[in-house]
Amino acid sequence: MSVLSLADVYRARRRIAGRVFHTPLVESQSLSEKAGTPVFLKLETVQPTGSFKLRGATNALARLAEQGCRKVVTASTGNHGRAVAHAARALGIDAMVCMSALVPANKVEAVRALGAQARIAGKSQDEAEHEALRLVREEGFAYVPPFDDLHVIAGQATIGLEIVEALPDVANIVVPLSGGGLFAGIAFAARGANRAIGLTGVTMSRGAAMHASLAAGRPVLVEEVETLADSLGGGIGLENRYTYALTRDLIDETVLLDEASIARGIVHAYEHERLVVEGAAAVGMAALLDGMLPAARIKRGPLVLIVTGANIDMEQHRRLVASASTQPSSHNAL
Amino acid sequence: MSVLSLADVYRARRRIAGRVFHTPLVESQSLSEKAGTPVFLKLETVQPTGSFKLRGATNALARLAEQGCRKVVTASTGNHGRAVAHAARALGIDAMVCMSALVPANKVEAVRALGAQARIAGKSQDEAEHEALRLVREEGFAYVPPFDDLHVIAGQATIGLEIVEALPDVANIVVPLSGGGLFAGIAFAARGANRAIGLTGVTMSRGAAMHASLAAGRPVLVEEVETLADSLGGGIGLENRYTYALTRDLIDETVLLDEASIARGIVHAYEHERLVVEGAAAVGMAALLDGMLPAARIKRGPLVLIVTGANIDMEQHRRLVASASTQPSSHNAL
Repeated sequence: MSVLSLADVYRARRRIAGRVFHTPLVESQSLSEKAGTPVFLKLETVQPTGSFKLRGATNALARLAEQGCRKVVTASTGNHGRAVAHAARALGIDAMVCMSALVPANKVEAVRALGAQARIAGKSQDEAEHEALRLVREEGFAYVPPFDDLHVIAGQATIGLEIVEALPDVANIVVPLSGGGLFAGIAFAARGANRAIGLTGVTMSRGAAMHASLAAGRPVLVEEVETLADSLGGGIGLENRYTYALTRDLIDETVLLDEASIARGIVHAYEHERLVVEGAAAVGMAALLDGMLPAARIKRGPLVLIVTGANIDMEQHRRLVASASTQPSSHNAL
Repeated sequence: MSVLSLADVYRARRRIAGRVFHTPLVESQSLSEKAGTPVFLKLETVQPTGSFKLRGATNALARLAEQGCRKVVTASTGNHGRAVAHAARALGIDAMVCMSALVPANKVEAVRALGAQARIAGKSQDEAEHEALRLVREEGFAYVPPFDDLHVIAGQATIGLEIVEALPDVANIVVPLSGGGLFAGIAFAARGANRAIGLTGVTMSRGAAMHASLAAGRPVLVEEVETLADSLGGGIGLENRYTYALTRDLIDETVLLDEASIARGIVHAYEHERLVVEGAAAVGMAALLDGMLPAARIKRGPLVLIVTGANIDMEQHRRLVASASTQPSSHNAL
C-alpha cells in the first residue's frame, strides 16, 4: 500500500484553492524547435512568494489549522521559509522562522515583511534548527518540514494534476531535484494518470544529496557547495521517511549539470522566454539546451519542464545576462 | 441600452476557456509599500502569445468559426497579429497577416512561425491594410479588428471579470490606454460588478490618440511618434464605433507619461517584480512610482495594475536594465 493516494492530492488541491495559483503551462517556441517535440513550461514563478513551495506549505499549514494548531515554526530562510510565512499570514496563524546570527539582515527583514517572527538563534543552520525543534518540544509549535512530509508532498503534487489535466498527452516531465518533495509529488500524480509518463530529475553536479543517496542505495550526507542552483542544495536527511523511497521508485533518470550549463539556462529563460528565474528553476531548460536529456525519451512526445521559482539575487541575474550578451554563444542563436 | 452586456462577457469567457489563461493576480510588496494600499499585478505577460490580445482575438475568431468562417485576415504585425495567428491555428482556421514590404524579416518570420500566412503588400501600413480589406471584399476573408469590435472588447473584458471575482474589494484599476479595447472591456466588466470602482487610463504623452480624441470630444488623428510603449501607438479610427464612446463614458482620468518614466517602469518590473515587460505593460507601475496617480483615489483601497504583455525587444530591455544599474536612482531603493 502506498503512503500517498490521489485522494490526498485532491484534498490538497481543495485546501489550497484560492490561496495558490493554478499556474500557466506555456509552450516554448524556441525549446520546441530545439527538441523537435512540443516543450511546455510550468510557470511556478508567478506564485505569490515566487516559487512552488507555497503549494506544499499552504496544504500543510491549512491541515494543521483544521486540527486547531495556531503556531508553526520552520528554520528555512529560503523559498520554504517565505512560503510558510505567507501561508501562515493568509490562514491567520503565527509563524516563527528560526535563523542563525549569520543570516544576512535583508533575509531577516524579508521574513518579517511577510508577517512572520524571526528568531535569531546560534551561529549555524544546525543551531537554528535545534531552536526550532526546542520550540516544538517546549512551546507547542508545529514544525513544517521543507519536503519530507506527506502533506507537503501532496501540495506539490497538485502541479502534477494540473499538468496531466491540461496536457493529457504529456510524455515526459522534467523536475528540478533537491529534497525530493517536488519530484515525488509531481511523479506520483503524473503516474497516477499515466504509468508511461517519463520522469527525469535534474540537479547540479556537486552537492546533490538525493542523487548521491540514490547511488548509495540509502540516504547519505553530502558536502554542501556553492551553486547557482542554491535552492537545490541541502541534505535529504539521514532519517528520510518518504521522499527518498518515493523518488527512488518513480524516477527514470537523474541528469547532473555544471554551473556553466545552469547559467545558460538562466540566460535562455531571460532572452527567449522573457522570464526571470532562479538557478534551480533553469535546470530543465539547461538540460534540454545542452543535450543532456535522453534523445529516445524526448522523441516520445510532449515534454514539460517545471520552472520552479524566480527568487534569484537580481545583481547576480544582471551579471549573468550582461556577460552572456558580450560573449558569442550558440545558445543565443536558438 | 448598452451595446455590450455582461452576458456577452460570460459568453466570451466560455468561448476562450481552455485556450487562454486565467492569469495570476499577484500582490506586489514593493508597490504596496509605495502606495500605502495593496497593489496587485494582473499578469497577462504569461498568455501564450505574451499579451492579453489573445483574449479578444480568440473570442472574435471562435465566434466567426461558430458561424462557419474558415479564413480571417488582419494587418497587424504586433501583439494583435500574433494573437490572431495563434488563435486561428488553435481553432483550425486559416489566418492571413498583411504587411508592407518595409516590415523587417524577423517579424514576417514570427508570423509564419505561428502558422499564419504572411502577405507582403505595398510599402506602408496603409497599403497593407488596403490589401487586407480587398481580401475581405473579394476573397471572402473575415477581418479581425484589433480593438474596435464588440467581440474583441468582450474578450478583453474577461480580465475585468477575473479581477472582481478574485478581489471583490478592488477600488481602482489602472489600464494601459491605446485604442480602448482593453480599457473599455475591463471598465465595463468592473463597473458591472461595482459602479464605484475607479478606472484610470495610462498612456504615453506624445501620440496618444484616445487621449487626444477625448480632449477633442470626437475621434481625431494624431501623429505617430516613437515610444518605448510602442504597443500603445496607432490611431483609434475616425470612424470609431465602440471604444471611443465606451472609454469616454467609463474613464475617470487619463495619465500621460514621458519616456523616462516608462523606462523606470520597465526597470522596476525587472528588479522588484522579476518580470520582463514591454513598455506598454509598464505604464501602470511607472505612473504609481512617479506619483502620477491621484492620491485621493489611491487611498480608497486595493489597486490593480494590468501588466499587458512581455513582447519587448530584448536588446532594448537589456540596455534599459544595464543603464539603470549604473545610474543612482531613488527608484532602485524602493
